[in-house]
Amino acid sequence: MTKKSRLLVAAAAVLPVAVLFLAASPAPSDGPKYTSEGRLMFPEHYREWVFLSSGLGMTYGPLASGEPRFDNVFVNPSAYRSFLETGHWPDKTVFVLEVRQAQSKGSINRGGHFQADVAGVETHVKDEQRFPRKWAFFGFQNGAKASEARAQDDASCYTCHEPKGAVETTFVQFYPTLIPIAKQKGSYQPRE
Amino acid sequence: MTKKSRLLVAAAAVLPVAVLFLAASPAPSDGPKYTSEGRLMFPEHYREWVFLSSGLGMTYGPLASGEPRFDNVFVNPSAYRSFLETGHWPDKTVFVLEVRQAQSKGSINRGGHFQADVAGVETHVKDEQRFPRKWAFFGFQNGAKASEARAQDDASCYTCHEPKGAVETTFVQFYPTLIPIAKQKGSYQPRE
Repeated sequence: MTKKSRLLVAAAAVLPVAVLFLAASPAPSDGPKYTSEGRLMFPEHYREWVFLSSGLGMTYGPLASGEPRFDNVFVNPSAYRSFLETGHWPDKTVFVLEVRQAQSKGSINRGGHFQADVAGVETHVKDEQRFPRKWAFFGFQNGAKASEARAQDDASCYTCHEPKGAVETTFVQFYPTLIPIAKQKGSYQPRE
Repeated sequence: MTKKSRLLVAAAAVLPVAVLFLAASPAPSDGPKYTSEGRLMFPEHYREWVFLSSGLGMTYGPLASGEPRFDNVFVNPSAYRSFLETGHWPDKTVFVLEVRQAQSKGSINRGGHFQADVAGVETHVKDEQRFPRKWAFFGFQNGAKASEARAQDDASCYTCHEPKGAVETTFVQFYPTLIPIAKQKGSYQPRE
């Protein structure tokens, strides 16, 4: 085997890995995706993302009603890993707030509440070049995949998220595994 | 470049991928790990596993008390992917039941409940060669990492899990995203 051939062998083994890293760095594969009209596409795989916490009947819930509902919060894995290292949310962070009906009677359960059908999905996206406030909210109502999801620039979400979020505009104060990370990294702001 | 060299180039590019697949198949990296005494080691990364659902104050909760608590259920990603394909739990499935205190007043929240400190972690593990019933339960109390976690062969868990689990001995009836999968694959058994 010639020296040139050995170099080619080495290059062939390393190149695919190098290309993967280069491609992944600027735009994570789990980041936000948009239609040509600028509408956010539904994050199809969010149920396989990192779960941050769940609440039942919390008063700040965006779809609050007479009956208490669960809200589950997920974040894309690339943003989660970055947060563990820095205490800050990187560009292309995507939060998903999934609101679910609560049920009490079913199978062997006779008390308390468990989760049933989805009532709505909302997202909170950091995309620094795209949004004037760096972050934007999108709602997916009635199972919409993209066509009905627009950035809610006048959203009531801002009323609480901007002044009350413990880390930037996010409610890290309600994500128990992230609170110690943010405090250790100095990004945590106590909010009343 | 000779024909032999080209073959070597091709082999060098494919071999690492083939080795990865071969190594991953028999023992998934997210499967159960044991001490030399056969105690289950704490699944350190379970918060990055796939979230299945959450309940508040459910009566079948293993750490039920006067105050309602949340229970979050996670499963290892390799088992989750297998379930999506087959509707069954593969060998080396690991469920984690994380019980958390519920809090009502805090920051901007004035109603309902959100999650606070961990009260306990229990696991449900499928390891066909190791356990006579194929599945076993392990409890991690008071932050134990491994030393206090033993298989609970006489566990009260069996009283409900064996006769009442919708898929094998697992409560898929309370995991809303998995119910349609199990029904479609024919593994779902309705349980009263």
